[in-house]
Amino acid sequence: MGNQELHRGLDGIAVAETRLSTIDGEAGELSIGGYPVAELAKNAIYEESVFLLFNNRLPTKSELESFCTELAGYRSISTEVRQVLRQAARENADPMDALRMGVAAANLGVDVTEPTELAKRLVSVIPTIVTTYWRYRSGKEPVDPRDDLGHTANYLYMLSGEEPDPAAVRGLETYLNTVVDHGLNASTFVARSITSSDSDLVSAVTGAVGSLKGSLHGGAPGPVLEMLLTADDSGDPEGYVQEKLDSGERLMGFGHRVYQTRDPRAEVLSHAAERFYSGSDDRAFFEFVEEFEETAVNRLADHRPDRNLETNVEFYTAVLLHGVDIPQELFTTTFAMSRVGGWTAHCLEQLADNKIIRPLSIYTGDRDRSWTPVDSR
Amino acid sequence: MGNQELHRGLDGIAVAETRLSTIDGEAGELSIGGYPVAELAKNAIYEESVFLLFNNRLPTKSELESFCTELAGYRSISTEVRQVLRQAARENADPMDALRMGVAAANLGVDVTEPTELAKRLVSVIPTIVTTYWRYRSGKEPVDPRDDLGHTANYLYMLSGEEPDPAAVRGLETYLNTVVDHGLNASTFVARSITSSDSDLVSAVTGAVGSLKGSLHGGAPGPVLEMLLTADDSGDPEGYVQEKLDSGERLMGFGHRVYQTRDPRAEVLSHAAERFYSGSDDRAFFEFVEEFEETAVNRLADHRPDRNLETNVEFYTAVLLHGVDIPQELFTTTFAMSRVGGWTAHCLEQLADNKIIRPLSIYTGDRDRSWTPVDSR
Repeated sequence: MGNQELHRGLDGIAVAETRLSTIDGEAGELSIGGYPVAELAKNAIYEESVFLLFNNRLPTKSELESFCTELAGYRSISTEVRQVLRQAARENADPMDALRMGVAAANLGVDVTEPTELAKRLVSVIPTIVTTYWRYRSGKEPVDPRDDLGHTANYLYMLSGEEPDPAAVRGLETYLNTVVDHGLNASTFVARSITSSDSDLVSAVTGAVGSLKGSLHGGAPGPVLEMLLTADDSGDPEGYVQEKLDSGERLMGFGHRVYQTRDPRAEVLSHAAERFYSGSDDRAFFEFVEEFEETAVNRLADHRPDRNLETNVEFYTAVLLHGVDIPQELFTTTFAMSRVGGWTAHCLEQLADNKIIRPLSIYTGDRDRSWTPVDSR
Repeated sequence: MGNQELHRGLDGIAVAETRLSTIDGEAGELSIGGYPVAELAKNAIYEESVFLLFNNRLPTKSELESFCTELAGYRSISTEVRQVLRQAARENADPMDALRMGVAAANLGVDVTEPTELAKRLVSVIPTIVTTYWRYRSGKEPVDPRDDLGHTANYLYMLSGEEPDPAAVRGLETYLNTVVDHGLNASTFVARSITSSDSDLVSAVTGAVGSLKGSLHGGAPGPVLEMLLTADDSGDPEGYVQEKLDSGERLMGFGHRVYQTRDPRAEVLSHAAERFYSGSDDRAFFEFVEEFEETAVNRLADHRPDRNLETNVEFYTAVLLHGVDIPQELFTTTFAMSRVGGWTAHCLEQLADNKIIRPLSIYTGDRDRSWTPVDSR
């Protein structure tokens, strides 16, 4: 026992095999369901990406139509869950707390227990939970889902109450495909761990939402946007960057633990953002962002020549989601809305060849204390 | 990458240091907060065990009084959560599903974010969630918590609507102390993993509830009771055991992965059950149980001489909880009601010296697929 090695963080320990995605940090490559992320992200609709993860192949046209119809049938939430979300909005709960409350009750009102059906339910219900909460939070009534709209368009519709612009749908679709899976990140590992006691997918995804909420995991695109808006307002991006670096502050949206070159997802999202902004009224903001990126990357190279601090996925997530009118407060919940495809696919993979995940701890406490009654303490 | 060793289940990998509990499987010893489980279980009230885990020492008399008062102040749930539990009851949801829904919303109505306060909230609110759900499920109105009763007595009171017998309180108290922590079991590991992204305790405990729900973890004391009641009804325990073994079925409640001798918790719980039943009207059932245990252990020794199949914690959990009138359907939720003390203490320990828990996966899928448009598939 005394010689037991401690693996805090489980760095470098492989716990599962997966066919869902793979990352090559040195080459800066990410492959999802066997496709380079750039291929998948720009071509697929979100339902297609999820089908790919669940089935390890792309759907035929009729399979895709059926899958979209099945998913659309799982969008509603019960009155009781709406009331909880309304109360969460009244109490100004963190949007990820509200999402956890809604996801935890995802099996209310749907009479399914089969893992693949629960997976579809979970993918479909998250946009409804997020938008219901947000409409209440904004002092508006929720908008019921419309089953003639695709997954992504329906999300934007439930958020604004208006049928969305196809360019915004395409922009968001690209984002949802880009971040749908990313190896065994912390929340995906939590989903697999919960599943491994032979529990259900609702429990697993509820846990994963809780993990993604943590600031070390899903929490950074919001602050990136704040930084960009502040720098834009300042009229002097160079000065802004220099001041941050001089005062020893971290510049949000640069560098990644795994990727030693530019994060391939940043590449995909910057192209998607460029395409979206070029047809929008807000072209000036995108031009500012490009200028900011260039300045920041150059300054960071001078400041930390030892590290390759390129823009990461969070930087262009912030830019793109802001463009398609997702409120900053919903960036992490929108991330969850994408990643649920990966979470549920990992759960199904875990169930197909399961072993309970149960590591050890090393005891550092006292031994053989003896009891003293409360009156004698 | 190709040489990466796979640790499915993370057997034998140590991921955390803890001062909360330690297990010596060979010697059949369990120590909680430095006390042998038998010492703690029979002497403490549940609040005292939780204080011990949180603070690494027993409370003075006045500290214990304050702690009990603080906990009692966190028992209420909001109307919206009650409605969700009522709906869960109407839909005959699994009690652990209902518990997950309630715990996920545990921060509604309490304006606290400090981890130690959330820990107290979580410990206190679980009995209210469980009993509210169960009263609805039984066609009755929930009973509001009474803050002049201790944690354990109040649970029994909210369940039945009547002030409980002190012997039942003491029996249940002993159970709650016995299973409050047990090293890094699967649900406790999930709680620490969620916490490790710097998430909150409500998220962590919600995930842990989901893990405990799995049949490989928290699910067995219910079936043990069914087995005992059926065997008792049969009037022929020997014949019952023999028939099970002859037909190749597993006998529930015997053997443990870790303990090579008798599970020390089974010892503690069998004494508590003996004490409880000796003063109850149901002494005959306990006599039957003792006879059944002897028969089963002897037959198992003949049947599997290679293994030491002694009664495990689930066996006497079933006997004791049945005695103090906990419905069989609530055995796993009552386990959660105890274990939340350990879960929250582990979360606080993780936060005090945190590192994100993020292992690897090994990719087994295809690479470099190229996209085919949907119309060409």
